Amino acid sequence: MPHLDLVVREIADEMRQRPDRGEVATYIPELARVDAKAFGLVVIDVAGNVAAGGDSEIPFSIQSISKVFTLTLALGKIGDRLWQRVGREPSGSPFNSIVQLEYERGIPRNPFINAGAIVVTDLILSRHQPREALGEILRFMRFLADDASISIDESVAASEQRTGFRNIALANYMKSFGVLDNPVEFSLGVYFHHCAIAMSCRQLAMAGRFLAHLGRHPSTALPVLHPERARRINALMLTCGHYDGSGEFAYRVGLPGKSGVGGGILAIAPGKATIAAWSPGLDANGNSLLARVALEALTKRMGWSIFGL
Amino acid sequence: MPHLDLVVREIADEMRQRPDRGEVATYIPELARVDAKAFGLVVIDVAGNVAAGGDSEIPFSIQSISKVFTLTLALGKIGDRLWQRVGREPSGSPFNSIVQLEYERGIPRNPFINAGAIVVTDLILSRHQPREALGEILRFMRFLADDASISIDESVAASEQRTGFRNIALANYMKSFGVLDNPVEFSLGVYFHHCAIAMSCRQLAMAGRFLAHLGRHPSTALPVLHPERARRINALMLTCGHYDGSGEFAYRVGLPGKSGVGGGILAIAPGKATIAAWSPGLDANGNSLLARVALEALTKRMGWSIFGL
Amino acid sequence: MPHLDLVVREIADEMRQRPDRGEVATYIPELARVDAKAFGLVVIDVAGNVAAGGDSEIPFSIQSISKVFTLTLALGKIGDRLWQRVGREPSGSPFNSIVQLEYERGIPRNPFINAGAIVVTDLILSRHQPREALGEILRFMRFLADDASISIDESVAASEQRTGFRNIALANYMKSFGVLDNPVEFSLGVYFHHCAIAMSCRQLAMAGRFLAHLGRHPSTALPVLHPERARRINALMLTCGHYDGSGEFAYRVGLPGKSGVGGGILAIAPGKATIAAWSPGLDANGNSLLARVALEALTKRMGWSIFGL
Amino acid sequence: MPHLDLVVREIADEMRQRPDRGEVATYIPELARVDAKAFGLVVIDVAGNVAAGGDSEIPFSIQSISKVFTLTLALGKIGDRLWQRVGREPSGSPFNSIVQLEYERGIPRNPFINAGAIVVTDLILSRHQPREALGEILRFMRFLADDASISIDESVAASEQRTGFRNIALANYMKSFGVLDNPVEFSLGVYFHHCAIAMSCRQLAMAGRFLAHLGRHPSTALPVLHPERARRINALMLTCGHYDGSGEFAYRVGLPGKSGVGGGILAIAPGKATIAAWSPGLDANGNSLLARVALEALTKRMGWSIFGL
Repeated sequence: MPHLDLVVREIADEMRQRPDRGEVATYIPELARVDAKAFGLVVIDVAGNVAAGGDSEIPFSIQSISKVFTLTLALGKIGDRLWQRVGREPSGSPFNSIVQLEYERGIPRNPFINAGAIVVTDLILSRHQPREALGEILRFMRFLADDASISIDESVAASEQRTGFRNIALANYMKSFGVLDNPVEFSLGVYFHHCAIAMSCRQLAMAGRFLAHLGRHPSTALPVLHPERARRINALMLTCGHYDGSGEFAYRVGLPGKSGVGGGILAIAPGKATIAAWSPGLDANGNSLLARVALEALTKRMGWSIFGL
Repeated sequence: MPHLDLVVREIADEMRQRPDRGEVATYIPELARVDAKAFGLVVIDVAGNVAAGGDSEIPFSIQSISKVFTLTLALGKIGDRLWQRVGREPSGSPFNSIVQLEYERGIPRNPFINAGAIVVTDLILSRHQPREALGEILRFMRFLADDASISIDESVAASEQRTGFRNIALANYMKSFGVLDNPVEFSLGVYFHHCAIAMSCRQLAMAGRFLAHLGRHPSTALPVLHPERARRINALMLTCGHYDGSGEFAYRVGLPGKSGVGGGILAIAPGKATIAAWSPGLDANGNSLLARVALEALTKRMGWSIFGL
Repeated sequence: MPHLDLVVREIADEMRQRPDRGEVATYIPELARVDAKAFGLVVIDVAGNVAAGGDSEIPFSIQSISKVFTLTLALGKIGDRLWQRVGREPSGSPFNSIVQLEYERGIPRNPFINAGAIVVTDLILSRHQPREALGEILRFMRFLADDASISIDESVAASEQRTGFRNIALANYMKSFGVLDNPVEFSLGVYFHHCAIAMSCRQLAMAGRFLAHLGRHPSTALPVLHPERARRINALMLTCGHYDGSGEFAYRVGLPGKSGVGGGILAIAPGKATIAAWSPGLDANGNSLLARVALEALTKRMGWSIFGL
Repeated sequence: MPHLDLVVREIADEMRQRPDRGEVATYIPELARVDAKAFGLVVIDVAGNVAAGGDSEIPFSIQSISKVFTLTLALGKIGDRLWQRVGREPSGSPFNSIVQLEYERGIPRNPFINAGAIVVTDLILSRHQPREALGEILRFMRFLADDASISIDESVAASEQRTGFRNIALANYMKSFGVLDNPVEFSLGVYFHHCAIAMSCRQLAMAGRFLAHLGRHPSTALPVLHPERARRINALMLTCGHYDGSGEFAYRVGLPGKSGVGGGILAIAPGKATIAAWSPGLDANGNSLLARVALEALTKRMGWSIFGL
């Protein structure tokens, strides 16, 4: 097997020189202020070795990657009752589509499209005030990453709260079917804030380790969630983690992964490693262009695809 | 690791006693004549060991499982140009939906929904008469399975040709967008016939070996298709192989797989084994109920899930 | 021709005895408090004769009938530029569907579905504070009906504002496409309030007279709007005035009409009469059952169908 | 009232000089051979006076206008049971859409979209051989028009039969839901042939007279269909006669009308006149551009709009 450190540095160098970097998301105004040339990559293997390249310590907005962690938290709190409110199948639609909700009475297809993640947030919120729920999510992220410095970028949260009309529409639409328990502004407020958590590639790769370890937290050996549920989350990341680019990501990268419009991708090589890649420019499906290319190169060179090799 | 032979026989015994077996498909009248209590399971590991249980030698109609093999054949013949005619993403719709075709100008979402498989058949047909194309498909199946006795059940083909109105609709609809090159009745004729290929679990598991071997035919060591393309087919089986039950299958079984309404499922544990399971009763999504349950038990006991353990 | 007074009284008597009255709308809690047995009918012919039967003086919530008047007001203010923001075709969908908006980039099909009426309200609002816009709408209704006592039922408005999640979803969804100019809560606030205007059948028939008079206000002879635009509104009422029951209403009643979930229907016999009918029980499409039956009887006996006789 | 003869000739002259004529339909190859500059207009008032202008005697392919006559024939034969197989509401979709059929289990929205007209043809066919059914339709047209010379353009029928993949798709799709009784090729064969009936404006205006006369044949005074049903057909023409341009036609022309892709439009001024206009160039919705403009001018000058004036 090639030396991981070398491979990670090689890829970071190659990415620095790529001319095509996609388009930085502008629909959340605050996100557009990022350095379009940034690129970071961190791999943590199951033995705990960390290989880092590029801008691996710069925090970015994790956006939809947070959905993996809120789903984990919600499954831990309420278990499989969660699946009464949200499905587990690919949607075949863009991340912010509302059409499927009308035909399926307000039940989102899976927890990784926006509507589904809002439902998950609503379930976490159920016994709390928004501030407490948000505090719990943040503490959970810090625990997973072994890093108390992780925080929310309030300017991004405020920016989305001012302009997130489509998410407001999705939430009210589901509310009209009785799918949300809490006041819409509570659920959305927590949702916008957990999407605005800022993390570096290193922090993100640390936080994702339990998914490569069948649900256990590797530093503490505490179970984060049941092994069955860790498998389920990995399966959902593979089938639904990149919206209507999920099939393409499955083929090219061959790992469960979840992207965010901030340009980050978290990927899991079960039993082998956790990977975080980041580059702000997005492809047509809203997934980071260079982060995906880097992950493709990494899994090829390391032979990590779950589909053979 | 548990002894494979024992596990397979155990599971076959357990399945024989399960009271809930789903509903046998009736929409192709000829398929309804099958023995609803049948169950077969065959596993072939990468060393070539064969473990068989239940009705492992009885031929059944492979139906949509044939889509895996026609896709393989078409990729070998025309390469990645194929993807100009058919997509690679989950559809989020039932296997015979026509809605997506209207919104996407006749291009099917993936090669494993009916519309996509008809396009693939049309591409194989392009330089042939229907009879020759069908002969080529059959020879390909026999080569893959090392078994010259594999044949088409003409009564099933005729039954579907008489009653397959929805497939006729799909084909003509795509033809209206110029997506099919050949006369509709040619493409459909070949499609109905390759769906009517009859194979036993043993034959099916043999035919699927190349997908566990990165594209190589294990008996002859000949490349069936490029390793990259074998990975792509495995990825497509995982994301799209069970229609709108694909997410559930990915989670429960944790392997790439393809089902058919005849009750068969072909599953691939990349680098480890090829599995064929069969039981005619179907669940609400049109996938074999017991074959799925058996595969779930098998991957759990063998630790084969690609999503960890 | 039969004597109008007699016909109206006959019909009111018949309606009082009908056992089947549909279901009173419950989705706005405040609306459910109405007397389910109420029935009113008022006809005003072009000579100004008034024929009244039943509960013709009891105010009810006009709800979606207000869309006819806000459209009139908006056309008067901004003219045909309005049609850049809203279409003029039947939608083939329920009154609160959001699917069509996704496929047509946030432009509602016509001004009589909820989304379209919210756009119209947004256009009226454009140069005003919500309070002023609402004042203008109310003054317009009083002017049309020659009746300064018409007012808004604040408890109905508040009830809808608390529970109108689907309308909030529609408005935010359009806002995400840039189709609304004003803050969503302003446009919705005015919308909920003008839907909560309370009028009796007499007041409603008075207010609708200009549509039977080619756009002129019959008491003052002032033009309310251009004759072309009065024709357009009548045409829209015929094709779109009863949601996905519009075709049925066109056939059975044979007049342009607009219904509201409060149980009212305003109908226009161009050049002949204006009719307001009211009964709170609704049919499956959300249109008043008895009001429609009464209008059908009236047009048949008077020979007023625009489709012959 | 202006003199009808003069108005018709004036309009024919104006249309001859219009530079914008739309696009001649090419999807049926044979239709594309027509003279793009042709224009014809015939009005027959209820007293039987005929006013003709332009190419009023040249036969053209009536295409979808035939749907008005097959619906009339089917209602006469099987009555209101027809409405168990086809709806009566606008579809809000293009003439050849298949999406609505999937969501509504194969029942077309109305008899004037292609799917609905195929169902109507299937019902006429039910007790006949295709040749007899076609003979009956043709005899019915000749009877209505008092003209034994009306015939089918076999080259147009053959052209559509070779290339009408979308209609073949619609028919097979409905067949899969059990909505069609006869073999698909029978129903489609009759459908393609009655769409290929060739008539001049004069013949078409003659054939439509019964709809202006509440269902009576004016030459013979025989009832063609019940007055109620004549009203229903007029209402359907208004709400659904021009596909997703129906609302626009209702407003601009203000009369029930039915268009065909051959460039013809039949319009009815109930109790006043029957009008046939023809010009091969179509607008974006597939309706004749100049025929619509001519009808708009005619109803304005004659004051015939059913919506006032």
